[in-house]
Amino acid sequence: MISGATRLYVVLGDPVTQVRSPGLLNPLFARLDVDAVLVPVHAKPADLARVVGGLQAIGNLDGIFVTVPHKTAAAGLAARRSPMVEITGSANALRREADGSWYAENFDGLGFVAGLVAAGHDPKGQRVALVGAGGAGSAIAAALLAAGADRLAVCDPDTAKLHALRDRLDAHWPGRTATSAEPDTGGAGLVVNATPLGLDPGDPLPFRPRLLPPGCVVADIIMKPAETRLLREAAELGHPVHYGMHMLDGQLDSYRAFFGWP
Amino acid sequence: MISGATRLYVVLGDPVTQVRSPGLLNPLFARLDVDAVLVPVHAKPADLARVVGGLQAIGNLDGIFVTVPHKTAAAGLAARRSPMVEITGSANALRREADGSWYAENFDGLGFVAGLVAAGHDPKGQRVALVGAGGAGSAIAAALLAAGADRLAVCDPDTAKLHALRDRLDAHWPGRTATSAEPDTGGAGLVVNATPLGLDPGDPLPFRPRLLPPGCVVADIIMKPAETRLLREAAELGHPVHYGMHMLDGQLDSYRAFFGWP
Repeated sequence: MISGATRLYVVLGDPVTQVRSPGLLNPLFARLDVDAVLVPVHAKPADLARVVGGLQAIGNLDGIFVTVPHKTAAAGLAARRSPMVEITGSANALRREADGSWYAENFDGLGFVAGLVAAGHDPKGQRVALVGAGGAGSAIAAALLAAGADRLAVCDPDTAKLHALRDRLDAHWPGRTATSAEPDTGGAGLVVNATPLGLDPGDPLPFRPRLLPPGCVVADIIMKPAETRLLREAAELGHPVHYGMHMLDGQLDSYRAFFGWP
Repeated sequence: MISGATRLYVVLGDPVTQVRSPGLLNPLFARLDVDAVLVPVHAKPADLARVVGGLQAIGNLDGIFVTVPHKTAAAGLAARRSPMVEITGSANALRREADGSWYAENFDGLGFVAGLVAAGHDPKGQRVALVGAGGAGSAIAAALLAAGADRLAVCDPDTAKLHALRDRLDAHWPGRTATSAEPDTGGAGLVVNATPLGLDPGDPLPFRPRLLPPGCVVADIIMKPAETRLLREAAELGHPVHYGMHMLDGQLDSYRAFFGWP
């Protein structure tokens, strides 16, 4: 029951209709007896700074979750950034600190890897192919290397973005990241879609499941639809698949600690 | 159940913890099967333009309700204004139009008078004393005169604000409004508190109930606490009293038409 005393959280995206976090976090608030509500906020890229500036001036707003396509821009909308945000250049959660300033964190990669491990797909020692070097892709790349992935092949058509990510990753994990404009899934034990391709049923596939090595795990970060065309086709070819929803499951405990919910 | 497709409404105030509208409108949305949610937004006066500018850039936000102390400033935060907003110089609801621009309306006075009439306290032909010439006071003044109040005595310590209101009222209802710095309740059949005095239990009374004529109706616009010290003391002296809550009841149907809820 929302009252005048209810604290606010928002999830920012463009589009935003596909976000699942209100359906996960609002019941969590009720279970934890936290008088707070998470609502979706649709902000176009051109309006992002204005929208976030307004939100940050709201006295009863304690946190901002960020999704596609704003994660990279969000890293620049907080006074302080976690090491993970510095490495990835993107943020998916902004928190108001006790002094009123804002702090940026990125849980995407950590939550994704926690979900993989829980599902029996530990990336440690694996060769991993990652498609997409945007906000989520950057976070997942860093978390995969931090979790011990042996070799990471990242692809993205935006060469400048791709090489900038490799340089940041190399600074922490030298020589373990290769880059290419087209997906390089040869020899991969795990391949991850970190692009928005699949949000719309008419989207092309981010890579061709038929070219994957046998037994290669196929993971998607898209949560709506729960089963993308990519995962359906990969499953039909006999590949183990890993759903986008797992990433969010792995993040709930992290959010709880980050925002100080009891 | 809030999802990514839920439309947003906010209620803006400083403070905002006392607002009752989320508890009234969210159940109404559920009854009407409207996928929308109203949340409280705390904005300090210095941050109001920034907060409203950010809110107006949110794609899925359709309306902004405005309460103390922002109603006068809110009249300036929309491209177009209703006649009631022009007369009162204040707004309590902003609506996004089909072309994306914003339109300001003021329901406070209309809702207040509808509530009075429904409770058997029709102001038609009455001598009315009104304390407070701010946003709510201005709206109630205009609605009382529009509803046929014979003579209106408005008081406010801010003389410039008070005289500006009288001039706007005189332009529509010439010669029916008197002004004074101190409450002028002599001969009144109805006296209205339209100041924030009473929000805090330690506030002084807006006027002295002991000086009222016998049988004079005492009305308050404050909704929390439901019974202010003013209404309690007036009732103890035998005066009929009219609660702030009635104003909001009278507004629900108006809001429904204004925002196009089914």
